[in-house]
Amino acid sequence: MTALDNLPPEVRDDVARAREKVARLHAELPRWGLVVWTAGNVSERVRVPGGEDLLVIKPSGVTYDELTPESMVVCDLDANLVDGDRGPSSDTAAHAYVYRHMPEIGGVVHTHSTYATAWAARGEEIPCVLTMMADEFGGPVPIGPFALIGDDSIGRGIVETLSDSRSPAVLMRNHGPFTIGRDATAAVKAAVMVEEVARTIHISRQLGEPVPIAAEHIDSLYARYQNVYGQH
Amino acid sequence: MTALDNLPPEVRDDVARAREKVARLHAELPRWGLVVWTAGNVSERVRVPGGEDLLVIKPSGVTYDELTPESMVVCDLDANLVDGDRGPSSDTAAHAYVYRHMPEIGGVVHTHSTYATAWAARGEEIPCVLTMMADEFGGPVPIGPFALIGDDSIGRGIVETLSDSRSPAVLMRNHGPFTIGRDATAAVKAAVMVEEVARTIHISRQLGEPVPIAAEHIDSLYARYQNVYGQH
Amino acid sequence: MTALDNLPPEVRDDVARAREKVARLHAELPRWGLVVWTAGNVSERVRVPGGEDLLVIKPSGVTYDELTPESMVVCDLDANLVDGDRGPSSDTAAHAYVYRHMPEIGGVVHTHSTYATAWAARGEEIPCVLTMMADEFGGPVPIGPFALIGDDSIGRGIVETLSDSRSPAVLMRNHGPFTIGRDATAAVKAAVMVEEVARTIHISRQLGEPVPIAAEHIDSLYARYQNVYGQH
Amino acid sequence: MTALDNLPPEVRDDVARAREKVARLHAELPRWGLVVWTAGNVSERVRVPGGEDLLVIKPSGVTYDELTPESMVVCDLDANLVDGDRGPSSDTAAHAYVYRHMPEIGGVVHTHSTYATAWAARGEEIPCVLTMMADEFGGPVPIGPFALIGDDSIGRGIVETLSDSRSPAVLMRNHGPFTIGRDATAAVKAAVMVEEVARTIHISRQLGEPVPIAAEHIDSLYARYQNVYGQH
Repeated sequence: MTALDNLPPEVRDDVARAREKVARLHAELPRWGLVVWTAGNVSERVRVPGGEDLLVIKPSGVTYDELTPESMVVCDLDANLVDGDRGPSSDTAAHAYVYRHMPEIGGVVHTHSTYATAWAARGEEIPCVLTMMADEFGGPVPIGPFALIGDDSIGRGIVETLSDSRSPAVLMRNHGPFTIGRDATAAVKAAVMVEEVARTIHISRQLGEPVPIAAEHIDSLYARYQNVYGQH
Repeated sequence: MTALDNLPPEVRDDVARAREKVARLHAELPRWGLVVWTAGNVSERVRVPGGEDLLVIKPSGVTYDELTPESMVVCDLDANLVDGDRGPSSDTAAHAYVYRHMPEIGGVVHTHSTYATAWAARGEEIPCVLTMMADEFGGPVPIGPFALIGDDSIGRGIVETLSDSRSPAVLMRNHGPFTIGRDATAAVKAAVMVEEVARTIHISRQLGEPVPIAAEHIDSLYARYQNVYGQH
Repeated sequence: MTALDNLPPEVRDDVARAREKVARLHAELPRWGLVVWTAGNVSERVRVPGGEDLLVIKPSGVTYDELTPESMVVCDLDANLVDGDRGPSSDTAAHAYVYRHMPEIGGVVHTHSTYATAWAARGEEIPCVLTMMADEFGGPVPIGPFALIGDDSIGRGIVETLSDSRSPAVLMRNHGPFTIGRDATAAVKAAVMVEEVARTIHISRQLGEPVPIAAEHIDSLYARYQNVYGQH
Repeated sequence: MTALDNLPPEVRDDVARAREKVARLHAELPRWGLVVWTAGNVSERVRVPGGEDLLVIKPSGVTYDELTPESMVVCDLDANLVDGDRGPSSDTAAHAYVYRHMPEIGGVVHTHSTYATAWAARGEEIPCVLTMMADEFGGPVPIGPFALIGDDSIGRGIVETLSDSRSPAVLMRNHGPFTIGRDATAAVKAAVMVEEVARTIHISRQLGEPVPIAAEHIDSLYARYQNVYGQH
């Protein structure tokens, strides 16, 4: 009997739904060219009324062809394994830290997508020079600190950087992007979009400087888009 | 009973054919790498003899896996919904403006394809230095103004820019390409080709300056190609 | 009754085999990312003992989804249609010119593949700085002249440029690559390889100068490779 | 009767398993965009207790659509054919040299993957500026010497360069990457990862200099990762 059996049936149903959703969303990462081999991970929070929330994430080192709802693992928000046949992704501690410190966040994604990681390697934020970027990010995509794996420093770097920004994406220096969202789908969308703007603006800058967008136009694009699409 | 039921049967048949065609053509956008996630939209005009024309377009926020003829929406040329279960794409007003002001145009496409958008971010027209570009575009691909969504300024920018050009594509500054055509297929072809020339000429310029093509050669290539292929 | 019916049965069989092969090889062009939309064409010579040779090529303006052996068209070496339901590709005159003037050549391919065309737009030959390029091309890939479609100037430019080179590929200025081979398969392989070396050497030069390979090493790599693989 | 029939049944089973595995792993090369046409090869060592080890590798010039376990060939560690219907890949001598001189190595992969080969053409090592690169490579990816095919010089260049490095990948100058691993799967993973870091760091450097990672951080990332994942 696993620790899951002690949870109310509604929460067990939510865990089952999150496993299915997280497994399905992982397939979006190679589909949009964001990961190679077994890199990258998607997680979703499962809310436990009157208890401690859980998260569902990919196990460590599993290939994208092997991903099934059953293979997804369940952890508590200290990254301890609650249910699953394999160990959780080694990035689980960073996901868990975000859920502990950002209660409104329901999904986290991490990739090493090429162009976003290229900006991260230079430690240079992505300037907001596209209307689609104003819509989705409301300004530049910020750089988080260099942090080693093994303690809370990656999670803390994500939370501190995103707390000062409208952006749902942070580029951890020399490492790669982490994205957040209301749920796992929104975090995956942010992972797709951060690579899209990282690539397009990189290519634009190869032959000169993009034209800036005035701050008030960024504000008005962001306000309108979040109003129209924010509820999804 | 929807407003469609008041139309003559031939027009209702044309609407059904346009829904099928527009749904099918949307699949060309991810196929040629022009869009990610739910971005991009294709529309086609439906002519209504003795009445006001209609347009068929993708609904807002629908993924490419969900696109069916039935999910396509019908609007009038003021972008009001005439038939459909969901709201039209937020770019519908720009498409409708083009149809109102360019009566010979039967199809419009909008994407954020990477290389075309990279030129748009710098506000720099694409020079005509390839014979295939002379064939299809008859000269440079022009830049349209910066314009906010929410009124007629995007549509007006497209129409004013394309009225001075042979090109079926305009790069809206800091935004991305819009393309037009006799029908939706021709507009999709122009969307594929503008990304192709944007990419090839970008890459060529990374290591030096492309050799210009003399204006009279551009004219003769364009005249010949439009004569041979223009009727399709 | 078409002109094909006047040919000996063995030649009619060869035409049928060439139609199947040329249709199948066209699918290699989008597979390796060499073409978009309906661009690009592959042809193969059919030898007619005691008569005038024929060529099999893609018809004009047909999409890659519609390519079948039956839709391939047969022309004589003056590019006149001999058999087929549609007009031949508008590049047929260039293919035919090559077959008329290079009797040992059995296949021709034309694409606008991105990196090869980028070198062509600058009118700059691709230097031989990779061992795989020494193997396949035996030296640089040369630039052909600027030539307008409509007379023999493209075909003549291809033949004159390749006559001075070991390379099976020529980059026609402001236009794109043409490749030749013993048969259509060899010409398609050359089209794939010229884009591969165009891309790799472009990328290498973006961050500095590739190390040259000594002429005697190029010669020895080419001699060995052609000896081992040349018969295929 | 082939030479395989003289081997103990367990070794014949190991050969059969290696053929299946090597055939399957070849499909990973085009999947991750590392090869075009018939380029690239994967091999695995088969240990023969009390005898001389064997290797299993792709035959020469076979397309990726034709790869089956039965078509894989078996050679001894002097690159002589032991079993198979076709000749071994022309790179077999280099693979065999590695197995002869690095007894702990069980898999070797060679590709001409674009970005890794671009660094190889400049003769420039890839600096370690990404945490994922510290994890997998423990430092820069080194450059091996220019070497002609036909004797032991490629194999010797690989072994001498990798003996001085933690990296499982070497970029042979003007040629391309060779990677090694405990088995063929690990060598394929290294081939995927070397292209990934070659591409990301190339793109990062196009717009400036990546921030270095301190040597002690590289050491700690490498030690942790090899400890966690090294046994797979």
